[in-house]
Amino acid sequence: MAINTQVTADQNAPPITQILAKFISSHPSKAWSDSVDHEAHRTFMNWLACAVGAANHESVLASLGAVQEFSPAPQASILGRHEKVDMANAALINGISSHTFDFDDTHLKTVIHPAGPVASALVALAEHIGSSGRELIDALVIGIDVACRIGNAMYPNHYDRGWHITGSTGTVGAAAACARLLGLSEAQTAMAIGIAASQPVGFREQFGTMTKPFHPGGAAKAGLTSALLAKHGFTASPRALEAPRGMIQSISTKYDWTEITEELGQRFEISLNTYKPFACGIVIHPSIDACSQLRAQGVTAENLERLELKVHHLVLELTGKKTPKDGLEGKFSVYHGCACGIVYGQASEDQYQDAVVQSPEMVALRAKVQATVDNSINEASVDVTAYLKDGRKIHLFVEHAIGSLKNPMTDDQLNKKFTNLTAPVIGLKETASLLAACWDLKNLPNLQGLLAHSKPL
Amino acid sequence: MAINTQVTADQNAPPITQILAKFISSHPSKAWSDSVDHEAHRTFMNWLACAVGAANHESVLASLGAVQEFSPAPQASILGRHEKVDMANAALINGISSHTFDFDDTHLKTVIHPAGPVASALVALAEHIGSSGRELIDALVIGIDVACRIGNAMYPNHYDRGWHITGSTGTVGAAAACARLLGLSEAQTAMAIGIAASQPVGFREQFGTMTKPFHPGGAAKAGLTSALLAKHGFTASPRALEAPRGMIQSISTKYDWTEITEELGQRFEISLNTYKPFACGIVIHPSIDACSQLRAQGVTAENLERLELKVHHLVLELTGKKTPKDGLEGKFSVYHGCACGIVYGQASEDQYQDAVVQSPEMVALRAKVQATVDNSINEASVDVTAYLKDGRKIHLFVEHAIGSLKNPMTDDQLNKKFTNLTAPVIGLKETASLLAACWDLKNLPNLQGLLAHSKPL
Repeated sequence: MAINTQVTADQNAPPITQILAKFISSHPSKAWSDSVDHEAHRTFMNWLACAVGAANHESVLASLGAVQEFSPAPQASILGRHEKVDMANAALINGISSHTFDFDDTHLKTVIHPAGPVASALVALAEHIGSSGRELIDALVIGIDVACRIGNAMYPNHYDRGWHITGSTGTVGAAAACARLLGLSEAQTAMAIGIAASQPVGFREQFGTMTKPFHPGGAAKAGLTSALLAKHGFTASPRALEAPRGMIQSISTKYDWTEITEELGQRFEISLNTYKPFACGIVIHPSIDACSQLRAQGVTAENLERLELKVHHLVLELTGKKTPKDGLEGKFSVYHGCACGIVYGQASEDQYQDAVVQSPEMVALRAKVQATVDNSINEASVDVTAYLKDGRKIHLFVEHAIGSLKNPMTDDQLNKKFTNLTAPVIGLKETASLLAACWDLKNLPNLQGLLAHSKPL
Repeated sequence: MAINTQVTADQNAPPITQILAKFISSHPSKAWSDSVDHEAHRTFMNWLACAVGAANHESVLASLGAVQEFSPAPQASILGRHEKVDMANAALINGISSHTFDFDDTHLKTVIHPAGPVASALVALAEHIGSSGRELIDALVIGIDVACRIGNAMYPNHYDRGWHITGSTGTVGAAAACARLLGLSEAQTAMAIGIAASQPVGFREQFGTMTKPFHPGGAAKAGLTSALLAKHGFTASPRALEAPRGMIQSISTKYDWTEITEELGQRFEISLNTYKPFACGIVIHPSIDACSQLRAQGVTAENLERLELKVHHLVLELTGKKTPKDGLEGKFSVYHGCACGIVYGQASEDQYQDAVVQSPEMVALRAKVQATVDNSINEASVDVTAYLKDGRKIHLFVEHAIGSLKNPMTDDQLNKKFTNLTAPVIGLKETASLLAACWDLKNLPNLQGLLAHSKPL
């Protein structure tokens, strides 16, 4: 019965919940730069491709099987599939599928994958209520801003403690986005945030299992449901985020409120969003990038004698598997990543199939790669020297790998990634139409046409 | 990108998830004492009455409105109402309604209200899949055991930090119970626990809002969904509960694994379950109990001149409102509690209606009550002296208030509480049938008959 007070509790936190509610409900449509709007389209299309690409993965089949036990009403589409389910469960499954390949977007400052929770909730709700593309983009920018700002306030303590920050901040981001799309009042929006604030999802122990992609899916579903509860008059604490026993102080001992309030409505966290060029952990990306550049300069599996890498220490700590046995282990092998760069010029999901990882050509090529730690090398960089059989030596230094903030993927590169993901599921013709619809999103009167192109053949 | 390790992390936690999975999936039916089985019936009927009693509360109407936007399939009943919704959302709403009056059961050691998450998930699932009463009782005992043992491991640190322990442990308890009811294998059960372990629900800042009862409801829904996901092959970490970045170590710095493993399957936490006799905070219960005893000895509002209470200091800290203005404030007034005891001999939801709290008789009676802190008085006790107008003086010392572990409510008292809650919603005739079905639960072939009696007139 004794009520102890946390020693570190901040009793005087600013009214974060109300500040965010006002921002979400009243920030004007497209009151930001064209580059923010463009980033929203990049965020959306990259997310969509990840979801379509994973539409037949066993994690999607298992979650769909569970959801179908609820006999859900056919309200909203599952991307890359014919089934429709109720909008909350469509948000769940699209959140799962879009994060299944670990190939979605990354807010590098917090390692949040913001589109998973936010876009998954929005597309399901928008389809059912008939929102326009413009309304969806507005809600996407604002929902991602809320999730990432809350992440900024808590990172890194919250993440170090064990939380998968994508799911814990994503519920509130999804609720914010759905509140915006539903046109909730400021007071209702504060309640939506508050209800969502009691439902952070996900721990890092789940990495490597289907429950990792469940986190953005669960967050999307919980956020959408929270917004609908608020719409119907359900109440929560107006200080649910910031109070001493509210969400943020209960799940993080770091809480920098200015990260949430400063320049709110003036700068947008979506501008810091990045997209993975390769379907594996980010530490390997500089090496794959360098090897793709070597390939462009004529290096092949046949003419290569030896490849020497100088890498940041985390590369070998996290991805030092010299002889990976299957696709999943391949994702934790910088050696396999280099072989992919030289042979394929890329490292998509295709290059992490068991058959590719186990092929004699790749096994032989990985054996030619030597990697050593060099403390002068940054995490985003790599130093590579290729020694060819004809005696030539090619040296490359990649300072900022492709896909980093300093060297973002171009729209053309994103289009190619999109196609690599979606074409195997829906075919090239529908892929072209879907891609065109994504870039035209802000002009679409509703999502019907776009979603019609997301179905398999 | 840097991966820090928590200083306090326990890398060598025992395999709690697997230990619980084995217990849940293989403990034989009714392999416990008759008193455990009886407690399960008391737990169930007390929970059911709370849900039926709150069936028309605004929190139920708001959550039902939100759920109906999903056009849910009519799979499972909402207690005290005619609507049916899908089983996950029925679990949500019954979890909300059963905790709305704060009148449900309490595992005093952890202040967990275990039936809210566990029974709400089970009844929805059992109705849909046609489980027997025996299967339901088995799953209830086991699910409550899992939730409360996890609570024991983390309490009080986890609760002090800000978590509403009912919702945070309840998701896993509900998943365990549903896994049992579904007959999942040990391996599937471990996955169900693991998926649920990523979804703790609820912070204490929400107390006083509808999101407080949302916590057991959300936990019920999440737990049921987790069990269905596991049934369909969805995977999670087999160490999701105990790993350094799993649920327990991420949300509590206290984790006593022996609380989970010791005498598992031999003693059952449901034996420590208690039921509130009065619809207010437990600190007032000794005072109401004492005043009800004074009433039985002839004390009335008219013949009383003055009442002197000696109480534990928390009574005045938490419930010291001398002049409550409405029903909600009345719940935080030991003075109103005493007046209820003297006038009504009880303090049910009826005694916390605005009209009762504001009535001149109650206002006048509250003014006659004086309370002082006495450091020799225990939380479960009160010392009361009534001075009557005729000069008589009646002294009472209540050591263990009614409803405490040492002085539990009798079955007859629970029956009366049940009737007070349900009769206003479903009428006396159906109440009698529903109550009879609750006591006969272990013999029922399915829940159809029982649930038919839970509908309003």
